[in-house]
Amino acid sequence: MQLIDGKAVSAAVKLEIAEEVRKMLAEGKKRPHLAAILVGHDGGSETYVAGKVKDCEDCGFKSTLIRFEDDVTEERLIEEVEKLNQDADVDGFIVQLPLPKHISEQKIIEAIDYHKDVDGFHPVNVGRANLGLPAFLSATPAGILELIKRYNIETAGKHVVVIGRSNIVGKPVANLLMQKSYPGNATVTVVHSYSKDIKEQCLSADIIICALGKPGFLKADMVKDGVVVIDVGTTRVPSTETKSGFRLKGDVDFEQVAPKCSFITPVPGGVGLMTRVSLMKNTLLAGSKAIYPAR
Amino acid sequence: MQLIDGKAVSAAVKLEIAEEVRKMLAEGKKRPHLAAILVGHDGGSETYVAGKVKDCEDCGFKSTLIRFEDDVTEERLIEEVEKLNQDADVDGFIVQLPLPKHISEQKIIEAIDYHKDVDGFHPVNVGRANLGLPAFLSATPAGILELIKRYNIETAGKHVVVIGRSNIVGKPVANLLMQKSYPGNATVTVVHSYSKDIKEQCLSADIIICALGKPGFLKADMVKDGVVVIDVGTTRVPSTETKSGFRLKGDVDFEQVAPKCSFITPVPGGVGLMTRVSLMKNTLLAGSKAIYPAR
Repeated sequence: MQLIDGKAVSAAVKLEIAEEVRKMLAEGKKRPHLAAILVGHDGGSETYVAGKVKDCEDCGFKSTLIRFEDDVTEERLIEEVEKLNQDADVDGFIVQLPLPKHISEQKIIEAIDYHKDVDGFHPVNVGRANLGLPAFLSATPAGILELIKRYNIETAGKHVVVIGRSNIVGKPVANLLMQKSYPGNATVTVVHSYSKDIKEQCLSADIIICALGKPGFLKADMVKDGVVVIDVGTTRVPSTETKSGFRLKGDVDFEQVAPKCSFITPVPGGVGLMTRVSLMKNTLLAGSKAIYPAR
Repeated sequence: MQLIDGKAVSAAVKLEIAEEVRKMLAEGKKRPHLAAILVGHDGGSETYVAGKVKDCEDCGFKSTLIRFEDDVTEERLIEEVEKLNQDADVDGFIVQLPLPKHISEQKIIEAIDYHKDVDGFHPVNVGRANLGLPAFLSATPAGILELIKRYNIETAGKHVVVIGRSNIVGKPVANLLMQKSYPGNATVTVVHSYSKDIKEQCLSADIIICALGKPGFLKADMVKDGVVVIDVGTTRVPSTETKSGFRLKGDVDFEQVAPKCSFITPVPGGVGLMTRVSLMKNTLLAGSKAIYPAR
């Protein structure tokens, strides 16, 4: 069993990005700039955004954090989005989700210029990724693909089972792994809450991507020997052992399942860190106009 | 075994559309208007476009056919697309594919205003459909869903195997059948040329959608009793029995497979006719502003 080290890989990717930024600056190009809009003071969102600002520093990006209180109107938020769309210095930006209930997240997402949509949530990026065209990929699927690449895990002709059909993980990662590329060319099955055959599907899987948000869901009797397990779950469970009073628990019963695996990601230290670094990768791609040509 | 009668269903759908159009006109609304751009004189394209014009008549739509010779430039074609984008009388339009090699199909598709993209090929429509949002669905997947609906075929929790991963059939139909809706909520597997387990996957399938374009590919020993088989294949094979000198052959070895099926579509007379009528459905949706609000 080999542990997939998300910490090491994400650190390596960040160093590579920082090196790219140094090259860009040496060539007289501008420093990539990521902006983030944060509404309210949700604890999770505060932590995520702080992480993103820190990652920008590590990568040599400029970052801008724009804050609004919980009672900001949808109109005001869209106004800010349009300002960032127009701001030539901003290469990419995100609006941290979730938003307060009086604001339509979908409306905000679609207001973002897809050329700057480094979260990859805009329909144009979702559609282009689906069609196999260059696009900003959403962060978790992109992070999973990067891990598969770095560990040279074969996907062509393999049976991949994706557990969960969310718009930000299950559906896009399934789609990416069936594309004509590497990682890709896999037989892909998506199972979810309505599926009656999750165990049978998992038992036939060469690679399982577990993204349903149920701690410890995947058990040893559901996987075959030599399986590759990618655990996307990060549920906060109460804990007396940590200062914060909680710890992250994955969708996989790690102790039981790990001995049967050829590769497995831990939680924490696996996919989560790759999700973070994927946003940095997208920012670099936005800054270097690698996905969409400069206008 | 019940034959799924695409001829009867497509005729019924056309009558329903014509009835809707009569209602719209009685309410003083404008007649839905589909425009088509046809480049060159390819035999297949001529036939398809003639069929679309005829379907428009049957549905009570206005139709406009715009023709260009093979040597039209990409710039000229985009100019025409932009004219149709601006034309308030045109509710939806298509550019018949394939286009001559010197023209980028993707560029043309992306030049179409997605509000009028009744082929459902624009990334915004692909992305929105993928996300489970209202969108123009591409014609063949929409036609398949309509057949499933009209025959009350259960999909929730069923194992659907899609053979083929094209952008216009395999990928979108797989995505639609995993959505939280009916038809949907299925466990979906996509297999293709790289898959080593096509037979095993098909043997476990409750529903098989065969869309790879290999005549007679699906054999009786690849399916279980009671399976539902949707045959998307329409390969032209030479024939001495028809005036045209060819006949259409599906991806399914119909004689062998049909006796094992609970439902099966014939070729011709199955999915092909539904593909045609789906474009009419999209034109109605465009005319009635049912997907995107009027601007």
